[in-house]
Amino acid sequence: MAGYEPKTHSLIAFHDRAAAFRDGADTPRDFLERCIAAIEAREGEIMAWAHLDFDGARKAADAAGARYREGRPLSPVDGLPVGIKDLIDTVDMPTEYGSTLFAGHRPKQDAAAVLALRQGGAVIIGKTVTIAFGGGDPAKTRNPHDTRRTPGGSSSGSAAAVGAPTIPAAIGTHARGSTIRPASFCGAFALKPSFGAINRQGVFSAADSMDHLGTFAGSLRDVWIVARHMARLAGGDPGHAGLYGGAAPPAPHKPMRLVRLEMAGWAETDDATKAAFEEVVASLAAAGVEIFARGDDPAIDDYEARLADMPGLWRDLYRFEMRWPMLQYLALYPDDVPPRLKRGLEEGAGLTQETYRAALVRRAHVKALHGELASRADGFVTLASPGPGPIGMDQGSAVFNEPSSVLGAPALSLPLMATGGAPVGLQLMGRIGGDEALAASGLWVAEHILGRPA
Amino acid sequence: MAGYEPKTHSLIAFHDRAAAFRDGADTPRDFLERCIAAIEAREGEIMAWAHLDFDGARKAADAAGARYREGRPLSPVDGLPVGIKDLIDTVDMPTEYGSTLFAGHRPKQDAAAVLALRQGGAVIIGKTVTIAFGGGDPAKTRNPHDTRRTPGGSSSGSAAAVGAPTIPAAIGTHARGSTIRPASFCGAFALKPSFGAINRQGVFSAADSMDHLGTFAGSLRDVWIVARHMARLAGGDPGHAGLYGGAAPPAPHKPMRLVRLEMAGWAETDDATKAAFEEVVASLAAAGVEIFARGDDPAIDDYEARLADMPGLWRDLYRFEMRWPMLQYLALYPDDVPPRLKRGLEEGAGLTQETYRAALVRRAHVKALHGELASRADGFVTLASPGPGPIGMDQGSAVFNEPSSVLGAPALSLPLMATGGAPVGLQLMGRIGGDEALAASGLWVAEHILGRPA
Repeated sequence: MAGYEPKTHSLIAFHDRAAAFRDGADTPRDFLERCIAAIEAREGEIMAWAHLDFDGARKAADAAGARYREGRPLSPVDGLPVGIKDLIDTVDMPTEYGSTLFAGHRPKQDAAAVLALRQGGAVIIGKTVTIAFGGGDPAKTRNPHDTRRTPGGSSSGSAAAVGAPTIPAAIGTHARGSTIRPASFCGAFALKPSFGAINRQGVFSAADSMDHLGTFAGSLRDVWIVARHMARLAGGDPGHAGLYGGAAPPAPHKPMRLVRLEMAGWAETDDATKAAFEEVVASLAAAGVEIFARGDDPAIDDYEARLADMPGLWRDLYRFEMRWPMLQYLALYPDDVPPRLKRGLEEGAGLTQETYRAALVRRAHVKALHGELASRADGFVTLASPGPGPIGMDQGSAVFNEPSSVLGAPALSLPLMATGGAPVGLQLMGRIGGDEALAASGLWVAEHILGRPA
Repeated sequence: MAGYEPKTHSLIAFHDRAAAFRDGADTPRDFLERCIAAIEAREGEIMAWAHLDFDGARKAADAAGARYREGRPLSPVDGLPVGIKDLIDTVDMPTEYGSTLFAGHRPKQDAAAVLALRQGGAVIIGKTVTIAFGGGDPAKTRNPHDTRRTPGGSSSGSAAAVGAPTIPAAIGTHARGSTIRPASFCGAFALKPSFGAINRQGVFSAADSMDHLGTFAGSLRDVWIVARHMARLAGGDPGHAGLYGGAAPPAPHKPMRLVRLEMAGWAETDDATKAAFEEVVASLAAAGVEIFARGDDPAIDDYEARLADMPGLWRDLYRFEMRWPMLQYLALYPDDVPPRLKRGLEEGAGLTQETYRAALVRRAHVKALHGELASRADGFVTLASPGPGPIGMDQGSAVFNEPSSVLGAPALSLPLMATGGAPVGLQLMGRIGGDEALAASGLWVAEHILGRPA
């Protein structure tokens, strides 16, 4: 089987701890101390953190412990140690957006999602490393499974800390591939929800119509619990209904039919990764999941053709949207804008409203086609990345991730494959707004491949 | 005729100055100096400004003058003196959101719309007074036509400075009535565009799904020029196509049919204001504009019934959306949250995602009905406020303004009426995305009533 098992030990799960916290067999403080020990053992080589607050975390964990002992946890995330990507505002820790321009910056408030976690009793351990402004220039973090490799970005630290594993969960953002890509490279479960499903207020974004709040965890059930908790307390983005579903993870649900997609990325994918993917797809088919692909429905052929155009469409949207505030930063604080981001800004500086409008029309067409196909299947199955994290500092290709960003469709990365011993994620993409159904399918697929709870 | 003429002198127009700036009959600097003189004459009693930068404005006006002399103005707003509401970020002036919490706050960048104005050569005179956080507590500004009266809010300073008149144009925001209401009370022309039509990035907002960037001016043509210029350079909100139309104002266009609406506000409207409104409507009908109202189409009766529910619907949306960041400000900085805003926050603190979702469903229904009616007429005619600005510090009722905020439909306030010598605006509301057609109708209506260019 293509199943991938992390080298060190199983990914850390939290959702099954509540009974032990109540009866004293375990405590949130002990759970936290195990995380701190793991961080201290690995941080020197992984460099996942921009800021750590063990003292604050210990206080929060002790308070959670008292609530469990009294039988009154605040929420399913009470006592959960969690890392916060440093593009996300925190009132009690520096928030630097990975940039020198915001060195030592202290927001006046938590981001809406961080406040929701805090109100639910979650234990905020620190801020995880991000690529500067979520752009293209590499950050210091390394892949926990092979430190020669990139962890991916821009949510580098969140993915690496969860994938190591050192913590059970972290949050990040995703406007191109910033959640699904690093989750794929670091061997973590992750959800990039439907556009608007989790409140992004208080989060730095350079591509507002494609940005999402993503969740990483050592188990898919924890991914769900964290995502749904944030949406329940903070809502979705203003004007959006917010992630639908129960506070507890859905039951695993075998999909009846999945559409197999190659997207623009298949041509870039190495043979070993292709083989691992085919093995997973064959295993799903053998278990009775109907797999539709090119040739089975003319809409799939048309959709694949449009997905091949996705990198260009993504770029036209991004480069227009990133102009504010980045062009001003470039003009006013040129030394604080790193070189790749600078190059992208310069290439996008001449974009007009007309180009952007044309891109919106292309988006509307491919979105309509996505909706039509999504109504005929339970979801889409593809790779989360064209292979494992490349060796070197480059954050790797987002070619399998742009479609869900442009469309606003929910996507999961499931750590079910390996190429040359390094993790590669299986990606499931769902219908817009169907995040809960996607999570149910994802649980079934992951447990079918892994042969154990996910 | 019900026509209203400002007491002091005609509202200041800018759009017809370009020829004079080119041939030297007038200069942007002279234009600015006339504004500065008017500000110095009236500011003591009106208190429209939170911050003034005459030196910076003079430099910008001189640079604009040089461009006109060379026959190369940057845009239709080159040399235009403009005021910026203090909820809108400026990199070179304090941006305090009307609050003590942000005293002396200096953003790292201009808001997208401010940058667009600057790039077009506009002369930014200063920051205009806003109600703190755009909430309910009165600011210091007074109505320029009767200082015992409120100028309305929350864009109090922008409306008062334009209505006085001391400047030709200003920008503000509008999440409930904050553009249309003060324009009505101060006798200014104003546009609250379709939702998303003008980029709001870098603008403080407490109700993100209902907030808009509004434009005030002494002439409706300047309203158009400023709004369209901002949208052309900055785009709409990310994901939106941005205000459609030409850089020059559309030609006046006589509407074929208008739907006369009473909304929830008619019951609060005083008799003199009702009479002034009926006089305007009769004049439009006499000129051949077909006026449809209750009884003429069952959809109008249903729409009016739903509009009667609008204050409650607006409140459910606002109180959920304002929770971030305002509930944190209340918890962390209670002394910086003024009393009315505090009361609203406390009333909304218990709102759940379920209540908000129910409000979104109500919004979807009334939006569908609005679209259906808008397809059968050129627009909707109603009052911009239930009378002139009340005497006292209260910012007045937004009962005629909540529908366009909730729906995201474009709305104009036209200074065509008076009650007891104080201005009251006529409101035209259009179809979502039809801002240019609305401006064309507004020009025809205003010129028909005023008997002169608008």
